[in-house]
Amino acid sequence: MSIVVQKYGGTSVADPERISAVADRIVATRERGDDVVVVVSAMGHTTDELITLAQGVNPNPPAREMDMLLTAGERISMSLMAMAIAARGVEAVSYTGSQAGILTDAAHGAAKIQAIRGTRVSDSLAQGKVVIVAGFQGVDPEGKEITTLGRGGSDATAVALAAALDAEACEICTDVDGIYSADPRIVPDARKLDEIAYDDMLEMAASGAGILMSRSVEVARRFNVPLHVRSSFNDNPGTWVKENTMEQAIISGVAHDSSEAKVTVRHVPDRPGVAASLFTPLAEQDVNVDMIVQNVSHDGFTDISFTVPTEAAETARGIAEKVAVELEAGEVDVDLDVAKVSLVGAGMKAHPGVAATVFSSLAAADINVEMISTSTIRISCVVRGDQVEDAVRVLHAAFDLGAEEA
Amino acid sequence: MSIVVQKYGGTSVADPERISAVADRIVATRERGDDVVVVVSAMGHTTDELITLAQGVNPNPPAREMDMLLTAGERISMSLMAMAIAARGVEAVSYTGSQAGILTDAAHGAAKIQAIRGTRVSDSLAQGKVVIVAGFQGVDPEGKEITTLGRGGSDATAVALAAALDAEACEICTDVDGIYSADPRIVPDARKLDEIAYDDMLEMAASGAGILMSRSVEVARRFNVPLHVRSSFNDNPGTWVKENTMEQAIISGVAHDSSEAKVTVRHVPDRPGVAASLFTPLAEQDVNVDMIVQNVSHDGFTDISFTVPTEAAETARGIAEKVAVELEAGEVDVDLDVAKVSLVGAGMKAHPGVAATVFSSLAAADINVEMISTSTIRISCVVRGDQVEDAVRVLHAAFDLGAEEA
Repeated sequence: MSIVVQKYGGTSVADPERISAVADRIVATRERGDDVVVVVSAMGHTTDELITLAQGVNPNPPAREMDMLLTAGERISMSLMAMAIAARGVEAVSYTGSQAGILTDAAHGAAKIQAIRGTRVSDSLAQGKVVIVAGFQGVDPEGKEITTLGRGGSDATAVALAAALDAEACEICTDVDGIYSADPRIVPDARKLDEIAYDDMLEMAASGAGILMSRSVEVARRFNVPLHVRSSFNDNPGTWVKENTMEQAIISGVAHDSSEAKVTVRHVPDRPGVAASLFTPLAEQDVNVDMIVQNVSHDGFTDISFTVPTEAAETARGIAEKVAVELEAGEVDVDLDVAKVSLVGAGMKAHPGVAATVFSSLAAADINVEMISTSTIRISCVVRGDQVEDAVRVLHAAFDLGAEEA
Repeated sequence: MSIVVQKYGGTSVADPERISAVADRIVATRERGDDVVVVVSAMGHTTDELITLAQGVNPNPPAREMDMLLTAGERISMSLMAMAIAARGVEAVSYTGSQAGILTDAAHGAAKIQAIRGTRVSDSLAQGKVVIVAGFQGVDPEGKEITTLGRGGSDATAVALAAALDAEACEICTDVDGIYSADPRIVPDARKLDEIAYDDMLEMAASGAGILMSRSVEVARRFNVPLHVRSSFNDNPGTWVKENTMEQAIISGVAHDSSEAKVTVRHVPDRPGVAASLFTPLAEQDVNVDMIVQNVSHDGFTDISFTVPTEAAETARGIAEKVAVELEAGEVDVDLDVAKVSLVGAGMKAHPGVAATVFSSLAAADINVEMISTSTIRISCVVRGDQVEDAVRVLHAAFDLGAEEA
């Protein structure tokens, strides 16, 4: 008998009615003959509500206690899910991250899974039970301190369990039907992908496609766990994320991200060590730098631009201005009104004309490209914020990614 | 340095403001030089809200999952309390029942504490931290399955911890100022007791005084832990519950209980084994029988009356009717409109006139006594439900228990 891991996010378990509907799905999966392990997030807005409570008693709560608090959220959803399955005559048992043996490092609030130990999950499966595991949480290697995994943590729990149990697949059940060639809210004829390679999915995730976080895709790739991203609310097939896709598309899709700001340091003396003197203090302050662009210099000076999350823009400005003084560079600009559009596809490695088509299509639509960054399977352009949706549509059309062409 | 255990109920930690106020109290206690262990219940109505959620997915949820669900409640309040104390510059750490080593039997929903193991609480105290422990919860002796202690569970946690830590006192911080000679809502001049003996407190609790449950008083008596019942909202001294009180009052107080029903089986053949044939099946159905009265027989027949919790009245009726048929007894009456008034006092052992004063005072007030049950330190009378408040006032006055006389 093979094992399927299903992960349900907060929207899918937001109230007793949705939990009951998900329980129907789980029981149906069980009755088709698979062993089922279910990973749940906290219900709906529970995590936000708990954070609000914490802020009400301490504006800067200790991370250890924050983890104690937040892990109550999945404890509630997991036990309710086990009850809902039991109401359908199928035995179910819920386990916390600690009980399921999800060992992490001790980094409260942003712990990384190190190993999955113990046999409670597999013992319960062997007894014919559906096993519910709390997502997003674990315990330190001594089994004493409770940790949380940070953003995307429930997906990470599900993929790690699927790897440890040698599951046939890890289903990420969510509120969309799968991975699309572009955001369907922007591109009406965006096509649901039947499958996408891990590498392409990683680039899509890093480029702003919000369905999966990079961390879970990375674990899935490392342990070759097939991911199936699909809707919690219907039985339609979704998108498979896996090692080698049958037909390697040239382009998988277009992603965009409006959550970054562009910082430019002008008139920087072009000498060795300049980049380090700027990006080392940014890293030390945990500012997550995405794109970095430095062009050739003129008369011994150059401009350096980089993007950071909008919420880190002011921190980045402060650091950049301090460094600029030290370097005797020019002024520092922070531009919040930018967005990034990315074209992703493993096939572009073998098709050298892709970049040219990107730039000419955007130019024909009068969209100015302010920064360019490429990997072997991705081309990202920073454009004005109010032009990003146009840019997504233009690229989606230019590469024939729409549903009619599928 | 001595250790104080403080227990705060759900009303005392109902929202961030109250949690912050309690944190002030705890920090003040710490600064007076004691080591402090705090036991918290779930916030306000959290437990009821979780039960409602459970009913929404399963009208008959498995007890194991119910315990998983409900224990989220104290997890939230304990971590918020630790954060609130940290906000005041005092180190604090929260532990679940399991982490605090509170080992119970495996009776989900009504577990009994068997032992307190481990050194996390005392180690943290030695490091100068305030320790917050989740009330109402524990773990089975294998350390695997989470349990809850049922009604009065948080008090039981606090008293058991106080006993294990050899604490100087266990403070039960609640929404009243202490134990009163009668319910102050009924008797305006009811007097707050400065102290009361364990035995009297046990009888008061069993007779309807709702502040403390018998189970925690029993543990306190067994391990000689002084209890201090006091308000969470002010610093006034409350009522000490302890082994030997300085001045043994003849009467400690008057308690009443309107939550019981009276069941009467009429015309029962008076032969050996009749009582067993009635009360054995009641016990098997977990019907909690309180008072039992059987009077002398006439012509070989007698009447048997007993009281049960109102919610068990229909179950009791069904059992009694079945037994009545088997015994060829008469009809079964169930009377919901009764209440019990009890006079409690260790001193009455040496004062034979107490019972006579009870009955004559009630008679003078035209209150009919329908059932009588006595222990060496308690006299309980069942009266009409609408006369119980009068009965409390009459007895309170008859024994001079009011504030002026104190």
